[in-house]
Formats: sequence, C-alpha cells, structure tokens
Amino acid sequence: MPRQPILPLVLDRRKDASLQAQLAVGLKALIRSGVLRPGAAVPSTRELARDQRISRNTVIQTYDRLIGEGYLEAAPRRGLFVSAVLARTSPRAAARTAPPRLPDAVDRLDAPVPFRPCQPDVRLFPLRLWNRLRARVLRSNGVHLLHYQSQLTFGLPGLRRSLATYLRESRGVQCDWRQIAVTNGSQQALYLLASLLLKPGSRVLMEDPGYLGARAAWMQAGATIEPVAVDAEGMRIPAEQRVPAPLVYTTPSRQFPTGACLSLSRRLALIEFAARNKAWIVEDDYDSEFRYSRPPLPSLQSLDTSGRVIYVGSMSKVLVPSLRLGFVVLPPPLVARFAELRAVLDDHGPLIDQATLAEFIESGALFTHIRRCRSEYARRLDALVESAQRQRLPLTFPHTDGGMNLAGFFADPDCDDEKHARRLRRAGFDVPSLSHYSLQRSQAGLVLGFTAFEAPEIRDSIRRLGQVLSRRQQGAGRVA
Amino acid sequence: MPRQPILPLVLDRRKDASLQAQLAVGLKALIRSGVLRPGAAVPSTRELARDQRISRNTVIQTYDRLIGEGYLEAAPRRGLFVSAVLARTSPRAAARTAPPRLPDAVDRLDAPVPFRPCQPDVRLFPLRLWNRLRARVLRSNGVHLLHYQSQLTFGLPGLRRSLATYLRESRGVQCDWRQIAVTNGSQQALYLLASLLLKPGSRVLMEDPGYLGARAAWMQAGATIEPVAVDAEGMRIPAEQRVPAPLVYTTPSRQFPTGACLSLSRRLALIEFAARNKAWIVEDDYDSEFRYSRPPLPSLQSLDTSGRVIYVGSMSKVLVPSLRLGFVVLPPPLVARFAELRAVLDDHGPLIDQATLAEFIESGALFTHIRRCRSEYARRLDALVESAQRQRLPLTFPHTDGGMNLAGFFADPDCDDEKHARRLRRAGFDVPSLSHYSLQRSQAGLVLGFTAFEAPEIRDSIRRLGQVLSRRQQGAGRVA
Repeated sequence: MPRQPILPLVLDRRKDASLQAQLAVGLKALIRSGVLRPGAAVPSTRELARDQRISRNTVIQTYDRLIGEGYLEAAPRRGLFVSAVLARTSPRAAARTAPPRLPDAVDRLDAPVPFRPCQPDVRLFPLRLWNRLRARVLRSNGVHLLHYQSQLTFGLPGLRRSLATYLRESRGVQCDWRQIAVTNGSQQALYLLASLLLKPGSRVLMEDPGYLGARAAWMQAGATIEPVAVDAEGMRIPAEQRVPAPLVYTTPSRQFPTGACLSLSRRLALIEFAARNKAWIVEDDYDSEFRYSRPPLPSLQSLDTSGRVIYVGSMSKVLVPSLRLGFVVLPPPLVARFAELRAVLDDHGPLIDQATLAEFIESGALFTHIRRCRSEYARRLDALVESAQRQRLPLTFPHTDGGMNLAGFFADPDCDDEKHARRLRRAGFDVPSLSHYSLQRSQAGLVLGFTAFEAPEIRDSIRRLGQVLSRRQQGAGRVA
Repeated sequence: MPRQPILPLVLDRRKDASLQAQLAVGLKALIRSGVLRPGAAVPSTRELARDQRISRNTVIQTYDRLIGEGYLEAAPRRGLFVSAVLARTSPRAAARTAPPRLPDAVDRLDAPVPFRPCQPDVRLFPLRLWNRLRARVLRSNGVHLLHYQSQLTFGLPGLRRSLATYLRESRGVQCDWRQIAVTNGSQQALYLLASLLLKPGSRVLMEDPGYLGARAAWMQAGATIEPVAVDAEGMRIPAEQRVPAPLVYTTPSRQFPTGACLSLSRRLALIEFAARNKAWIVEDDYDSEFRYSRPPLPSLQSLDTSGRVIYVGSMSKVLVPSLRLGFVVLPPPLVARFAELRAVLDDHGPLIDQATLAEFIESGALFTHIRRCRSEYARRLDALVESAQRQRLPLTFPHTDGGMNLAGFFADPDCDDEKHARRLRRAGFDVPSLSHYSLQRSQAGLVLGFTAFEAPEIRDSIRRLGQVLSRRQQGAGRVA
C-alpha cells in the first residue's frame, strides 16, 4: 500500500514552475479550501521536506514566503501556524458565487463587407512609408517619445503645427496651432465637447438623419436631441429667432448620411443663428478631402467671425481608422477647460504615431496619399453609379460629387427602408437604411459606402444587391 | 504711368500655387473684405483674363469654382454677381474679434529630472525587439489591424487572453479574458469607472496620501472624497459597520506614495467591508512587478470571493508610458456597461500596439524585460538607500523592499514638507512632498522616484539634494 503523504500535495518535477512555486501554490490552495484550517500547525520544515522528498531549503523558503504573504504566522518556540485572520474568509462564499455571466465577446478581426459606409481602403495606405517615417522619428527624437508627456495633453506641438498648416491650406481653417487638440479619433473629441458644453436636459440641434456617434455623445451627457430636417441644401436652419440650445451639430461639407452640401446662404444663416443664440456649432468635417469633381468647399469655420464654430476632424478616413487619430480646433475660450478634462480622461494619447503623422504631413506624403485615394475613389464612385443605372436599382442618387458614401432614395419616400436593409443584411450586405440614422420619419433610402471596395467588387455586389432588392419587390408584389 | 488693373489682384507666376488657386483666393479676399460688395457685378471672363494676362480658361474655371462655393451667382443673360447672401456677413464683426487669448502651450518633450516618481527607465525598453514584433504582427494580420474594429471596444481578443494568463500567473488574478478591457492607460480605466459607478455626491473612500490621478477621476464625477489614513500596514480599514460609499480606492501591493504593503488581515477586512457595504473596491496595481527582495504579493482580487474587486493595471511602468496601454479586470456585472460607455468615449484604442503587446507577452519578452528591470532597479534602489545614509539625509525610509519610489519621512512629522519640495524644485529637482498627495494633514516626507536614473546619477543627485536640504535646515536655524 503506498504511503499516505502528511499533506495532499503533488509536486511535479517535470513542470516549468519551480518546486518552491508549486509548493507555495499547493499550500495556499490547502489553506483556502479549508484542508489546513486557521490556527492549525503546519508540518515542520524537516518533516515536509522528507515527506515530499525535496530539499529542506525549498520548504524553508516557501514557508518564509507564505509568512511574508500573511498565510502563515510563527509562534515563538511553538512553530508555524496557519494565520488566524484567515478564519474570516468563508470558503462557502466562494462556492455561492455563480459562474460569471458575460456578454458574448466578439473574437475576430473584421473586414468591411459591401457597402459598409465610411470605410477607407486601408490597402491603399502606404504602410511601408509610414513605418520608415516612424523609424526615422524614433531615431531622431530618441527616447523622448517613450516617456510620459503629461504636459502634452493636446498632443505633440510638432503635429499640431503641421495640422494647423494643413487645415489652413486645404480647408481654410483659421487658427493658432495652440487651439488644436489631438484626440483618440474624432469620437473622443465629440465626447469631450459633450461633457464640457452640455448638462442633463440641454437641447442639441442635430441634423436628422445624422451621425450616430455624435448623437450617442450628446445623449451620454444627458442632452435632449432636437432633430433638424435635411434637404438638398443640407441642414434646414431653424426660422425661430431664439432657440435655447447650447449646441448645434452639423456636417456641412457633406451631410452624413445624405451627402448634401450645406449651401453658402445656410452656412451664413447658421453662423448668425449661433451668434444670436450664443450656441456652439460643432462642424464635423469627416470626409471633405474626398470631393471628385471640384475642389473641396472651405470649412464653415473659415466663414465664422464670431468664434462659435468648433471644427472636428479625423485621420481615420484619410489614413487608417485603427490609428485613432482625430483632432479638434477649439475656440480660445474652450482651450483650458478641454485640456483639464482630457488630463483626467486619459492623460494623453500615444505619441509615436503622432510624431509619425507630423512627419507624414511635413514630407508631403499626406497630400500624395489623398490625391491617390481621390482618383481611386472617383473611379469606384463611377463604377457604383454606372452599375446602379445598368442594374436599374430602384434608387436615385442626387449627390454624386464626392465623399465615401452614396445615399440612394427610394421612389416611394414612405416605404420601409429598414426592411430592405434587413433583407440585404441577411444576404451578406452591410447597407444601412436612412431610417437607421433618423429620429424623425425621414425619406426612405439606403446608404452605400463604396471606398473600401475595388471597382469589380462594386459591380458584382451591385448586381447581387439589385437581385435581392428586386426579389423583395416582386415578393412584396405577390403578397399584396 | 503704369496701367491700373480693374481688380486689385496680384498673381505670382513663380509661386507653387496654381494661377487658378491664386485667383480664387484673391477674389474671395476681395469679397470678404468688402472691395467686391454683395450684388456687385464681377468683370467678364474675357476682361479679367486680358487684364491679368492669364488664359480665359483659368478665369472661367475660377468663376465656376466660386459659383460652386456660393461666392458668385449667375443672373441669366446679365452676367455674374457677388452673391447677395454675403451681405449678411459683417466685415466689422471680424475686426471686432479680439486676437485669441490662449494658455501658454508647452512646446517641448520632457525627460524626467531626479527624482520624479513613477518613471520607468525607457532606455531599458527593447525598442528594436518591439519593432520587430510589430512588423511581424503587421505581416501576419495583414490589413485587418488597420480597419475600424468597433466591435472590439475592449481591445484585441488575443491581447486580452495573453493578459489573462499573465495576470493569473504573476498576480493570482482570477478572471475570464472577456472580463478584461484594454484602456488608454490606467487613467482611462479610472475615469470610466468613476463615470459608471459614481454620482454627484457619492462618497469615495480613498487612501490619503494617495494617487492624484484617481482622485481627479472621482472628483470629475462629482464625488466627495473621504480620506482614509495610511500607516505601516497600508490603508486603515474603517471600523464602522456601515459606510454608505459605493467605491473604495486602494493600492494594496504598494501604497502610493508611502510604499506600505496592505497586510493580509487588512486585505480580508477590506473585502469584508466592501461586501457588507455593497461597495466596489478599485485595486490599482500600478507597479507590483517591481519587488526586489521577495516575490510580489498576490493581488487583492485573488482573495476576493464576492466579486467586488475591480483590478486596474498598466503597461506604462513595465514597458513605456507613451504606449498608453492600461487594462482593467471587471467583475462580470460591469462588463456590458463599461463597453457601452467606452464605445461612446472613443470607440476603441489603437490596435497595432495592442497586437504587438500580445506578441511581446506570448514570446516571453515581457518576462525577460521585467526580470531585467527588476535587477537594474534593485541596484538603483540600493544606490539610493546607501547614498541617503552616507549623505545623512534627514529622512527615514521604512519601506525599501520594492517599487519605483521611496517615501522618506522627516523626523519631525509636522514639519512643512512642501517648503522642502519647493526649495528642491528651485534647485532643479522634482521631488514631491507627501503633503502634495494628501487631503488631510499627513506625516511630513518626500517621495523619491529612482527607477529612471542610473546609479551614478542617483548618487550624485542625492549628494546635491542633501546639500539643498541641509542648507535649508541651517538657514532655518539662522533665522530662528
């Protein structure tokens, strides 16, 4: 009959973990499970060493460690005991704890399927050049880019200067570089602005249909959303003289998701409206670089003489989303408060990517990349419009001069576009309805992003999409 | 006499900008400044082309662009006019706007000066290896790491799995990988927890002296801080049975900034306290990897059977701060709410660094790096303790077994430690006082971070620091 060990411990000499570590883990398990009870004496070091056929030194060191961790305590001249304080942990409490119920976690990396909106083609991104520039800034800035730089809540000054020049030249934005804060994507800028400018119950005027990320940020701050209708000239400016809303959100360059461009007269009316009501205008300029037939319109901020426009931009569309590089141009009175809140939120963003982006802008690579994307995306837009016509999609596309998405409107403005979107989702598409982005009843339509897909894929997908939509209509016809 | 041009425009053929772009900018400036007034006719394309000696095509294209941008409007058969809507912008408004007053912006990258606390030595970081692993993950994950991955609010599953294993093996943390959220530094985790768990007026029990980043997060949420005194066994657990506080913040492995380790009996008492009061415990395990004489203590989370400990950790000390990689282990009931708020806050963090970190952990490089830092930092700690003794600094150091900082206490517990800190700051040091971290009156002392400085620099700096402190004492003596 095999000899019974004095403690039910199994040490495995083949394991990577040292015998001392195994012994410690085993003893703690015996204590936690109640086999060794609080106040009980433990075997002497000599006994346990003999019993487990290990060196006495291993036992001494392990006991020493458990004393240090508070599991054991020494009574002078009486030996070692399991700490009495452990009597206060109840092993039953552990048993009572239900196994954790967790939401299903997504466990995969995602590639966009046709026609998910707002997805740049990351395959066009000059990753090698980016990595070369990254290596260069790491060489020249030495280790400084690795430290905490808590004084740089707004990001690297070099990048902020480059952005100021870029925004002035390409978007007409008038600002000092110190007004620019680099953020973790434009979403963080929207969240911070919501936290700074809104209180529970604040009213926010927002384009409807409109961008859901912005709406979520305003609602997180407890604001009430006042949907503002959109037509071919963009957001309709409220006719009332006084509207007690501290914030207006707009995408003037290309209304998201309809694609309408805010006309100059409305831009001026909006700025007047904001000045009259002492409201802030958040101008979200998410994809204005991509305008194919004409140069991009200058920003709303460039027209603003009252300092009430907050310009929000992003490198997610121009470069790649996963860098999470956004920025905001703050009117001077907001600079200090924004910096304070950002410091509490997450101190500052990752610096190596910021330094690389500055180099990317300064070297001219950004302009080259934008030009390349612009001509490639223009071809894809043509492919989309042509195939839509050839396939006789039951949609009209009024705004086809730019952007990353096309909004197609159904002939019947009241049809159930969400039904079409669901049917397309089941067929493997990612084509949101206009209703998806709307609080009010909006004109029925679908939003097709085309920039992440090459022309042949676009043509093929439009053909299949046309089949799904026409089956639907026939099906609907049969039922009626 | 030189001929007067019909419009005061100066085009420069040597400039990089095209003549068309220069003409557009010039015309818009004339419109904005009021030289060309709303409703005024502009010269015909033929006239202006002749006048400026440029091709008529250039003028046609420029006018076309300004029509598109709304600056000009065409009246059929009458010609082109400056848009009437522009009458609503007042050039005087622009002139009235004061030049922006901006806070002074810091324009430099910072290296820590002795003895700034909590600074790892970024020169020890194996940057080349990191870059090699980064290149490897970019090759193997293709372009997927560049896309939006909004479904991965909590970070890359691969990294979360690696962290779960790492935390179990090194810190005894018991969790499913789906409970782990990767955050932009631990500060973002603290901010998100504050937003989720606190309301204005909520009471937060917090070690005093304690970590200012955490205090700022609780206060941002409108909470009231209840300072809890700290002694040689760490935080004193309140004796009252019922304390209506939803959150307790603690640094049990090494109390920040005193360095005390929370004793086992207090750990158990704290867990009981939280269970009794239905409070959450935020365990900030900011530098437990650095313990030089014994293995690190297991985490408080590992003792918790009631699921009330939220474990917050960071790679800022173990790797480098500028990566901004922190994480939090959430009790299952908090997982879904945390994810929701994170999505609104900034969607998700940068992914390439996350994938690189996963590879860094899996390849064993993290353990190698920690071991290297541990032995190097142990030498620096020895250098600090020895020089402090040799220089007879008027400070005692009770906790010298680990960490990145040493808290030194003055013999007179009521002396004005902030005066010493200010004097040291003027002498070029960065040595905060214990009062700096305290709401209540705390024992007088100074906090010395030693990990960012090599042993010779430490010895030299301690010598100079000793001179500053003794001058101060002599000075004080002379005045008295």
